[in-house]
Amino acid sequence: MNYQIPEINLKALFLGSKGENVNLFKEVLNKIVDEHVGWRQNYQPQDLPVISPFDKSSESFQNTADHMRSVFDQLSSKLRSESLPWHTAGRFWGHMNSETLMPAIIAYTAAMLWNGNNVAYESSPGTSQMEEEVGHQLCKMMSYREGHSWGHICADGSIANLEGLWYARNIKSLPLAIKEVAPEHVEGKSEWELLNMPTNEIMDILDKVQDKLDDIKAKSARSGRYLDKLGKWLIPQTKHYSWLKAADIIGIGLDAVEAIDVDSSYHMDIEKLETRIRELAAENTPVLGVVGVVGSTEEGQIDHIHKMVALREKLAKEGIYFYIHVDAAYGGYARSIFLDENDQFIEYNKINEVFKKHNVFTDMSLKDEWLTEDVYEAFKAMSQVESITIDPHKMGYIPYSAGAIVIQDIRMRDAISYFATYVFEKGADIPALLGAYILEGSKAGATAAAVWTAHKVLPLNVTGFGKLMGASIEGAYRFYNFLKERTFNVNGKVIKLHPLTKPDFNMVDYVFNEEGNTDLEKMNKLNHEFFNYASYVKGGLYNNEFITSHTDFAIPDYGNSPLEFVNSLGFSREEWDRVEKVTILRACALSPYAHDKDVFEEYALKIEKAIQDKLEKIYLYEM
Amino acid sequence: MNYQIPEINLKALFLGSKGENVNLFKEVLNKIVDEHVGWRQNYQPQDLPVISPFDKSSESFQNTADHMRSVFDQLSSKLRSESLPWHTAGRFWGHMNSETLMPAIIAYTAAMLWNGNNVAYESSPGTSQMEEEVGHQLCKMMSYREGHSWGHICADGSIANLEGLWYARNIKSLPLAIKEVAPEHVEGKSEWELLNMPTNEIMDILDKVQDKLDDIKAKSARSGRYLDKLGKWLIPQTKHYSWLKAADIIGIGLDAVEAIDVDSSYHMDIEKLETRIRELAAENTPVLGVVGVVGSTEEGQIDHIHKMVALREKLAKEGIYFYIHVDAAYGGYARSIFLDENDQFIEYNKINEVFKKHNVFTDMSLKDEWLTEDVYEAFKAMSQVESITIDPHKMGYIPYSAGAIVIQDIRMRDAISYFATYVFEKGADIPALLGAYILEGSKAGATAAAVWTAHKVLPLNVTGFGKLMGASIEGAYRFYNFLKERTFNVNGKVIKLHPLTKPDFNMVDYVFNEEGNTDLEKMNKLNHEFFNYASYVKGGLYNNEFITSHTDFAIPDYGNSPLEFVNSLGFSREEWDRVEKVTILRACALSPYAHDKDVFEEYALKIEKAIQDKLEKIYLYEM
Repeated sequence: MNYQIPEINLKALFLGSKGENVNLFKEVLNKIVDEHVGWRQNYQPQDLPVISPFDKSSESFQNTADHMRSVFDQLSSKLRSESLPWHTAGRFWGHMNSETLMPAIIAYTAAMLWNGNNVAYESSPGTSQMEEEVGHQLCKMMSYREGHSWGHICADGSIANLEGLWYARNIKSLPLAIKEVAPEHVEGKSEWELLNMPTNEIMDILDKVQDKLDDIKAKSARSGRYLDKLGKWLIPQTKHYSWLKAADIIGIGLDAVEAIDVDSSYHMDIEKLETRIRELAAENTPVLGVVGVVGSTEEGQIDHIHKMVALREKLAKEGIYFYIHVDAAYGGYARSIFLDENDQFIEYNKINEVFKKHNVFTDMSLKDEWLTEDVYEAFKAMSQVESITIDPHKMGYIPYSAGAIVIQDIRMRDAISYFATYVFEKGADIPALLGAYILEGSKAGATAAAVWTAHKVLPLNVTGFGKLMGASIEGAYRFYNFLKERTFNVNGKVIKLHPLTKPDFNMVDYVFNEEGNTDLEKMNKLNHEFFNYASYVKGGLYNNEFITSHTDFAIPDYGNSPLEFVNSLGFSREEWDRVEKVTILRACALSPYAHDKDVFEEYALKIEKAIQDKLEKIYLYEM
Repeated sequence: MNYQIPEINLKALFLGSKGENVNLFKEVLNKIVDEHVGWRQNYQPQDLPVISPFDKSSESFQNTADHMRSVFDQLSSKLRSESLPWHTAGRFWGHMNSETLMPAIIAYTAAMLWNGNNVAYESSPGTSQMEEEVGHQLCKMMSYREGHSWGHICADGSIANLEGLWYARNIKSLPLAIKEVAPEHVEGKSEWELLNMPTNEIMDILDKVQDKLDDIKAKSARSGRYLDKLGKWLIPQTKHYSWLKAADIIGIGLDAVEAIDVDSSYHMDIEKLETRIRELAAENTPVLGVVGVVGSTEEGQIDHIHKMVALREKLAKEGIYFYIHVDAAYGGYARSIFLDENDQFIEYNKINEVFKKHNVFTDMSLKDEWLTEDVYEAFKAMSQVESITIDPHKMGYIPYSAGAIVIQDIRMRDAISYFATYVFEKGADIPALLGAYILEGSKAGATAAAVWTAHKVLPLNVTGFGKLMGASIEGAYRFYNFLKERTFNVNGKVIKLHPLTKPDFNMVDYVFNEEGNTDLEKMNKLNHEFFNYASYVKGGLYNNEFITSHTDFAIPDYGNSPLEFVNSLGFSREEWDRVEKVTILRACALSPYAHDKDVFEEYALKIEKAIQDKLEKIYLYEM
């Protein structure tokens, strides 16, 4: 039954821009439906059907079935008229959405027929096992130590981030609780020292006081204690609002969140991070934790995790310690491109060789354009942090909703775990306990089946998901190069395209500006109107020949980090201070087809024409 | 296009115990897949396919497709060997799982093909509209005022409960923040008065200070303030562990949670609730809120919400106010059985007439056995509480994961809302803002489509879901009556079945006991062994002829509430004090088929024989 996984052809794994693989899709889908029905039929075959042929011929059955068919006509019409055409190989350069993996869609449907609930092993043995396996696969993708780390699927990245903060909060408070319950284990430590203990030291102590664990937990932050002592939660200035929400929910409050400036390429400025941590230490304020972002929501940039980890090592020598959570909701799967076929992190100087062997890029010059040592080192250093959010429903190409979190040290679960007798048998295998170790309760076994199937089809290394990541990055760079310095002429006006920054990953931000324009407000209006014409706003999504998304970088959130870009377009500092924001167009390049040179070039012509048409309309009606 | 919804035949809406409706299922499923593919094909028909016939004939494509097929063979085998046979019409009386609605399964798959993300209207116009509609439908099911209430889908009941507590916490703190920012609106009020203001009065003040709203919010609990002033969160003694988890996460801490005793039929004792609230008031401790449970997880009992609401009205006259959250994760949909075809709450003396008209019960004597005035009044009073958790994936017969929360006053959203510019356009319609008003971020549009479709097929009143609720309750009472005083003989020993309590809903708890046995530990062992033989524990799920679930009622969680039951079985008070727990078997009667007298009686014989076989094995090998 074992076989060598063949060289993966990505084209066999998606339904297709034009539904090219519909026969394969329906073959597998119907086969598994039939297998499910066979399973029902043959469970206790001595039992007769309860829905008889007479039932099925009855008028009320037929009427009810027709009623259901009519509702599906409504559903189908609504979905077809009010959904986004992200399936297109080259016309959708917008929101973080694209084709998802055919095996994931089918697996979800299949498992939904069995409808397991992974909160409890009892009600979902098969899919609970899959979730446990998926957790370990994601840990391995992060090069977390096998057998020492753990992970699970959750509803989405916001929930995973909230869980990360929950871990950090409860763990940070544990030494204070240990001091109350088992002071001999933290003898001689000052409050400052207790609040700066490395996570692994805290876990080592917990190992020694298992008999007092419940007492210690009862005296920790979970009881409502010490929330005001735990210090600051530091996030990048490009802060995702989910972090504010998380701080609100978890009770440390917004006042405990501080944003650290980003540099002009939208990475957290690690020097400023160090300065701020030292200032806080001087005021006797600890740092609860630092969030690094791998794939920022608005720019797709990769924070310099390696520098963050190095800073922590440096400060540890001075008695300062902070938890690191990496929000890789977006970029987590991209780490697979750096793992060789044995799941080992590839040495920097071997990358070209390995990529060539596995055809990760069709054009290695685009790989060269993309990969910097900082991006490489940032991904490499992820194995050094306490917890990581990874969303299968983003770069895992799994349908919504599938988030995930992994933790470096499985013992961390003790800081947040609960028990309920009906959910599991104490002492049973780990998967039986899931509901007691995570933020959520009931959860779809189908999600686990979808992710498990995708990981089986595409291993989480350069032979599988890595190739898909490569395709996506290559497509992004084709789009980025297409945008650079492209010019349109509208009624004698020259409109130029300007990418925001060189992408660390597969997101390309850009703006249109009229040559010679010095009015930032006017540029913002142009880009906002362009979004309106290239989105649902003006209606007719299905007939729209080019679709994108947008965002605003405004001073309250971004400070002056966009200033360098704004200057480069010819706007003055005064103009920036006056307008206080820049409207940006934003393309997540997720298409699994656009990396192909021929495909991209064909669509480039169409995109250029669609943009020209939109600009003409905008200048005619709006500007 | 409009038509009168026909009299619903439930048999047309499930795949069937033996997959009887597989043809109908595949007809609708394949039709909607074809419609989706047609949509892809006809989007910009001038674009050629990117996966060519040559691609499809290539060796790597074929190998990849075969690899995918092989993975599906593994998935199918795993699902068939490690899943629960809850589809059976009469052999599965265990965990909260059963057949789910065929239209919901198909709608989920259909919408998954479009993969909308309801966090943002931009990326999911169609399914976002569906979610908004579903929210209003659920509000109407609770008789919340139209246009004044709101609701949304969330991952599960734990998340919905957490969100309810988040609402309560932030709202409770608002008067203290108003006092700081806009003191003229709470002039002359003491801190005690501020902490006992009714929710609607607080909302009325917010209406008047919209310009200071951000300031007020920044000074509320969301900033981390006042968490220790907000008082106690009171839950029933039968407490679900998700409430402890929620209190931990939300930062009020476990120390703020107090359990109020339940009576011997497992309802919160409202007299004890009053006593405790008065004691707390005497100590100057406010009550943050009270949780009523509609469908307790272990017993399916319905707390007396009407008495809780009446107590609040009484205490309000003495200046004491508390938020009420109803956890109707399990029982929420059951309110549909009390709504007539115009969605009006049926008068008590009209119920028989309406039920007969719509064939809600096949045997009205079982309805009489079930329905008490307390159950009726409890459901009726749900419209009077601030927020309610309702799980479509429980009594909505929707596949996992689909939870929901509804709030009585749409203005409450201001207490928890956030904004992020990329997620929505300010000023756009309500659905565009979803991510800013809820706990989660990304979420499957497919869930909304599944719930929307189910609600379209089965209206949330006595003509639709009410009939399904009736079927489930009727099935539960058939099982309950089957259990009552049933006796088995094993090697000369007489083993009797004893239901725990008369069910308020559709859950039946029960125990086996040997006649004359006065050793509680022995009875617990017997029931635990029975569970092992009637669950995954002993393996061979697929060949098991009777499946159930179990729980333990132990003194740390339940106090002495099981004592009356334990006494009735002949165990002394001393024996209870010695053993401190009773092991209970637990049957959620969700089958949509078992209400039928003929079906039930056929299975009753099989169940009786299966139980006899298990008991014989247990006495042979285990006791």
